[in-house]
Amino acid sequence: MSERQSLLGTRAAELDAADDLGKLRERFTLPDGVVYLDGNSLGALPAGVPGRVADVVAREWGELLIRSWDESGWWTAPERIGDRIAPLLGAAPGQVVVGDSTSVNLFKAVVGAARLAAPGRGELLVDATTFPTDGYIAQSAARMTGLRVVPVEPAAVPGALGPDTAAVLLNHVDYRTGRLHDLPAITAAARAAGAVTVWDLCHSAGALPVGLDAHGVDLAVGCTYKYLNGGPGSPAYLYIAARHQADFDSPLPGWNSHAEPFAMSPGFVPADGAVRGRVGTPDILSMLALEAALEAWDGVRIEDVRAKSLALTDFFLECVEAYLPAGRVELVTPRAHAERGSQISLRTDDAAAVMRELVARGVVGDFRHPDVLRFGFTPLYVGFADAERAARTLGHVYG
Amino acid sequence: MSERQSLLGTRAAELDAADDLGKLRERFTLPDGVVYLDGNSLGALPAGVPGRVADVVAREWGELLIRSWDESGWWTAPERIGDRIAPLLGAAPGQVVVGDSTSVNLFKAVVGAARLAAPGRGELLVDATTFPTDGYIAQSAARMTGLRVVPVEPAAVPGALGPDTAAVLLNHVDYRTGRLHDLPAITAAARAAGAVTVWDLCHSAGALPVGLDAHGVDLAVGCTYKYLNGGPGSPAYLYIAARHQADFDSPLPGWNSHAEPFAMSPGFVPADGAVRGRVGTPDILSMLALEAALEAWDGVRIEDVRAKSLALTDFFLECVEAYLPAGRVELVTPRAHAERGSQISLRTDDAAAVMRELVARGVVGDFRHPDVLRFGFTPLYVGFADAERAARTLGHVYG
Repeated sequence: MSERQSLLGTRAAELDAADDLGKLRERFTLPDGVVYLDGNSLGALPAGVPGRVADVVAREWGELLIRSWDESGWWTAPERIGDRIAPLLGAAPGQVVVGDSTSVNLFKAVVGAARLAAPGRGELLVDATTFPTDGYIAQSAARMTGLRVVPVEPAAVPGALGPDTAAVLLNHVDYRTGRLHDLPAITAAARAAGAVTVWDLCHSAGALPVGLDAHGVDLAVGCTYKYLNGGPGSPAYLYIAARHQADFDSPLPGWNSHAEPFAMSPGFVPADGAVRGRVGTPDILSMLALEAALEAWDGVRIEDVRAKSLALTDFFLECVEAYLPAGRVELVTPRAHAERGSQISLRTDDAAAVMRELVARGVVGDFRHPDVLRFGFTPLYVGFADAERAARTLGHVYG
Repeated sequence: MSERQSLLGTRAAELDAADDLGKLRERFTLPDGVVYLDGNSLGALPAGVPGRVADVVAREWGELLIRSWDESGWWTAPERIGDRIAPLLGAAPGQVVVGDSTSVNLFKAVVGAARLAAPGRGELLVDATTFPTDGYIAQSAARMTGLRVVPVEPAAVPGALGPDTAAVLLNHVDYRTGRLHDLPAITAAARAAGAVTVWDLCHSAGALPVGLDAHGVDLAVGCTYKYLNGGPGSPAYLYIAARHQADFDSPLPGWNSHAEPFAMSPGFVPADGAVRGRVGTPDILSMLALEAALEAWDGVRIEDVRAKSLALTDFFLECVEAYLPAGRVELVTPRAHAERGSQISLRTDDAAAVMRELVARGVVGDFRHPDVLRFGFTPLYVGFADAERAARTLGHVYG
């Protein structure tokens, strides 16, 4: 063991010992011997989920059957779980509803934004570096509402806003680079220009403070299977700011968003509140698995998560620089804390093969086409020794 | 015990003894002492589901984590499970994809139908007796594609078709009355008029033969939590006839429907086949619970299910007539086999209170606003003794 390695190993142990969030790892079930840095793609399994899911299946479904829609609280789960997520987003109760996929919620949000926008405005500004599905859905929503999509780099949005801007769709953190965009400033600029904002929080919620209410965001969506650990494909959420709820006009008005769903009346009358963002029958097994998963957040402050996240990614970078031969990887993620999400992306030749080799050595990150190694740091269950081992293993791969 | 009751009880026992499907009840876990006639709302728990779900949670998610998208077959589950459902719908492989709610799939289907329709046609005929969500979604799809909704009683559809009819949305079985509509004849009439058909199969699939391919249906949707027993809010499906797949233009083009989802390219290129009906990340826990649930259908012919369904509802009606004082209930469901789904609906005064009393006595059906008692017969796990006991208990309530 080199001296350098020994020093970093010691530092990691000290940092872990001083980490107040370190004990939260006990709230998760992780495979032995693996450093899991892919929680920004699929969060780890919270320890309370298997028991809760077993009870939902065997007792609530198997024994109570149809009675569970009332007696087990199935019917109100989308808004109840929305309120459980809301504090992580900086949202007061009654503004977040859970259900459907992120893509479907994005469609509701972008069409909803187009309909909230001042009449006559024709442009939908869309993050040019966005996750592809956001772009596809934005294009479809624009086509169906008569808007014109204008791709814009997020930093250029303030300069691109104008009297013809109806709405703006942006990612809070870029899925490839890990760059954190300036939600407060961009939202303020959009509001000043009279445009409606839609933020995609997939790569920020649960990793850093979002402050939806404080910053005056209009609409937002996000998934729950990354930093919120809801399980594979767990239902997404939609945030509708209270001030817009009475006018939010969903393109997907299912019976679950009706003011009186069981009246089964032919005319659609939307429910009050975020409930009008619901559509069809909610997916209960996945929904209640998510609810159990959120217990891992009990007593956790998102500000503390953010502080640990930055410390983890700083330390990982330090280890990468110490362990890797110079010039083998290029840092894609910004160094400035204000511009960094909770992942580190490294550009390298032969990234797919490098990631396969890393995974074979027990360090799980992921590969993003064409040349990016992506390492997600999830402060609830990743520690400093994990970061050190990941960088050291990467050094061995380049050995 | 009256003679009449004794005779019907004996008949029930004989019918159950002669029922080849009777042994399928062992494939389900049902609460003791309950006659469950609400499987047309939430199907019972198939015995294989709890173990499979536990494995998906603990091993596939908890241990394999992100690797399961490939190694556990998560990614291809929507089309694989679609192919598992297809034979129950009379569909050849490659035309059914599972995911999202029925309402969301209906939006895809109605917008898709509008875009498949001959240019210039302006009318969308919609089943005037439809489940409310279908009407709301149809209205939204029409608004966003420039069509005009025309409500029509299903039997009147052939006469309402004309050169301006773009598409027709119908329920195969009416959720309230249990009336079975004539899918072959209406579909043939619509095709002859050059209109695109969209059928909602929620209340027929798994209860009777549908024959989508044989009858030339264009698009169809359905849920999986009723006769298919997928669990509460389990994902729905979308059928896109092979001849339309190349032109099917979804309003919800998520990355899962892209020809190369992991290329993460900014331009949308739809996948071939039913896969283009996918949208976002599929809800894996619910999806794989459904897959396990479908094992209850192994070796079962839908024609045999239909024969038993009709025998059960015939026998239930006979028992109702024998046990109930004359004039207390009015039969809403048609007597003719060709017009009957797999439920019996009875109109009565004070229906909500009657159903509460029935449930208290261990017979679970449901109440549909304002005056309907609904009894669903699911031939995989309901027998003739159940039908007799349900009618007898109803007689006692009126007793």
